[in-house]
Amino acid sequence: MNLWRLKRRPVGDIADGDLAYVSEPIPELQDGEFLVRVNYLSLDPTNRIWMSDMEQYMPPVGLGEPMRGGVVGRIVKSRKPGWEEGQLVAGLGAWADHIVTDGTGMSMMPEIPGISIPNAFGTFGVVGPTAYFGLLDIGQPKAGETLVVSAAAGGVGQIVGQIGKLKGCHVIGIAGGPEKCRYIVEELGFDAAIDHKAEDVGAALDRLAPDGVDINFEQVGGPIMSAVVSRMKHFGRMPLCGMISTYNATSAEEEPGRWTLILMRRLTIRGFIVTDFAHRFPEAVQQLAGWMLEGKLKTRQDIRPGLARADEWVKLLYSGGNFGKLLVEVTPE
Amino acid sequence: MNLWRLKRRPVGDIADGDLAYVSEPIPELQDGEFLVRVNYLSLDPTNRIWMSDMEQYMPPVGLGEPMRGGVVGRIVKSRKPGWEEGQLVAGLGAWADHIVTDGTGMSMMPEIPGISIPNAFGTFGVVGPTAYFGLLDIGQPKAGETLVVSAAAGGVGQIVGQIGKLKGCHVIGIAGGPEKCRYIVEELGFDAAIDHKAEDVGAALDRLAPDGVDINFEQVGGPIMSAVVSRMKHFGRMPLCGMISTYNATSAEEEPGRWTLILMRRLTIRGFIVTDFAHRFPEAVQQLAGWMLEGKLKTRQDIRPGLARADEWVKLLYSGGNFGKLLVEVTPE
Repeated sequence: MNLWRLKRRPVGDIADGDLAYVSEPIPELQDGEFLVRVNYLSLDPTNRIWMSDMEQYMPPVGLGEPMRGGVVGRIVKSRKPGWEEGQLVAGLGAWADHIVTDGTGMSMMPEIPGISIPNAFGTFGVVGPTAYFGLLDIGQPKAGETLVVSAAAGGVGQIVGQIGKLKGCHVIGIAGGPEKCRYIVEELGFDAAIDHKAEDVGAALDRLAPDGVDINFEQVGGPIMSAVVSRMKHFGRMPLCGMISTYNATSAEEEPGRWTLILMRRLTIRGFIVTDFAHRFPEAVQQLAGWMLEGKLKTRQDIRPGLARADEWVKLLYSGGNFGKLLVEVTPE
Repeated sequence: MNLWRLKRRPVGDIADGDLAYVSEPIPELQDGEFLVRVNYLSLDPTNRIWMSDMEQYMPPVGLGEPMRGGVVGRIVKSRKPGWEEGQLVAGLGAWADHIVTDGTGMSMMPEIPGISIPNAFGTFGVVGPTAYFGLLDIGQPKAGETLVVSAAAGGVGQIVGQIGKLKGCHVIGIAGGPEKCRYIVEELGFDAAIDHKAEDVGAALDRLAPDGVDINFEQVGGPIMSAVVSRMKHFGRMPLCGMISTYNATSAEEEPGRWTLILMRRLTIRGFIVTDFAHRFPEAVQQLAGWMLEGKLKTRQDIRPGLARADEWVKLLYSGGNFGKLLVEVTPE
């Protein structure tokens, strides 16, 4: 089997040698374990957090350990009752083409007719529930409100915007480049897009949302966040989902806080991690799948070939090079 | 009548000449107006905000206008049906010994046997509802949780801590000086006090709350806030009530944001202004008065003499010189 191990904690951008691609024999299965052949690996912004030893929401990956990642694949051998050969499973695994597991962090993945495996995995696995709970539970959207979502053409952002539209919001997406901006408006039905590479985000918001922003679904941090936060309306809500612009930062510099603004405008800022809602995942998946089968929700996957190049593909997330949910095709289905 | 007018917006600390104390004839009463003889003026941290033209939650006081402030007093003349001579009223008025008003922002004040006028005004007028809604609605305290409140011997802080105890929390107050610290523990029943003038707040919290802080009722901002926020537990809540340490700041420097910490620990930060809960004031007053009459809630007023010195007394708030809710005795009851 082939897999990636974390050799060194990255300083700034992920560099050659931080991760090592190694070939190892597949461990002997013990009672209560099963072997998964991985079809797709999910690459997510949080991967960079796990590589670091910054304060985080689960233990960082230890040096020398397999790199952690979301995976989907089929059981090819099992010594665990109830987890049978041929079953499709998904969950938190490793950057590897085979995984031996006792099932911790894994679950059976239903195969829904009409929804491909990468589409289902790339939508329902992590990003869909993230968008669903972050927007609906924390953002509390109401019809007629203005919703801004950053990283709008990414895995989570594309779903947030479409749920916002389903709830009657005026949806503005922020993305990098004309193709992504065209996509979210023309294909996904967002009301407007701001190309942060081509225009000043604040000026664009002043034009597109002159009355301000009710909900900011925040994923990027940095100057883009600042531009949105300073234009939030009174009683605005900000689900804080991620701050990808800061994950590679080497300085301890903090975001400008704008705490007086939280006070004066009575904003609610709430950080969340999708696993906080793990007990309600079935609700999210059922609703999202329903919308998808009714043609009300589309998602785009950006599928890159070859586990051996995962260290290269993951960097796309931090440069904005992916377009849709980033997956690696590890072995053929 | 005597009153204070705002002549100039303070830069940094309030300086001589920013406010002017003037004597003017009492305006002729029009139909629908009444005249109040003011007994007590409430001085509150937000006064400094109203003097500035920073972004705020209601219009700033205009240059040349009477300085805005909370007042309690009796109607001495009325041309407004239902508002009769002798009635005690309270509300948003001016730094003045007489006020002519059409009743906007004023309400009748019930006289509760056993509770003095300054005690009732200094508890139920603004600070009690602020403590009540901020802690209960936003802080959502649960028995056994650790609650930290800054400016703990001030008008709001003393009530927050006592409600926290009534709800079964472990309550730590932060105050300046041994007298205030002794008071909140020995007289009000807080579990512990931190004297921010004598000890490092972070080190004291590590000792007093080694497992971290569930709720931070924030009133001061600056380094004290930073020390508490960095020790908050996962899923902690922070009602953001005020940031008095920043109100006199002249630089545009922002608080260190610690936004990644909001994310990783899934904190909820929510700004609020007591008037957001205006429709529920009767609930708060009824509950607070009940606790007070049962001997479960004590409040301390710091009553200073003389409207003519209001410009001097208000500065006590920013130097920490007041001990309890700051009131000015304007005219004898």
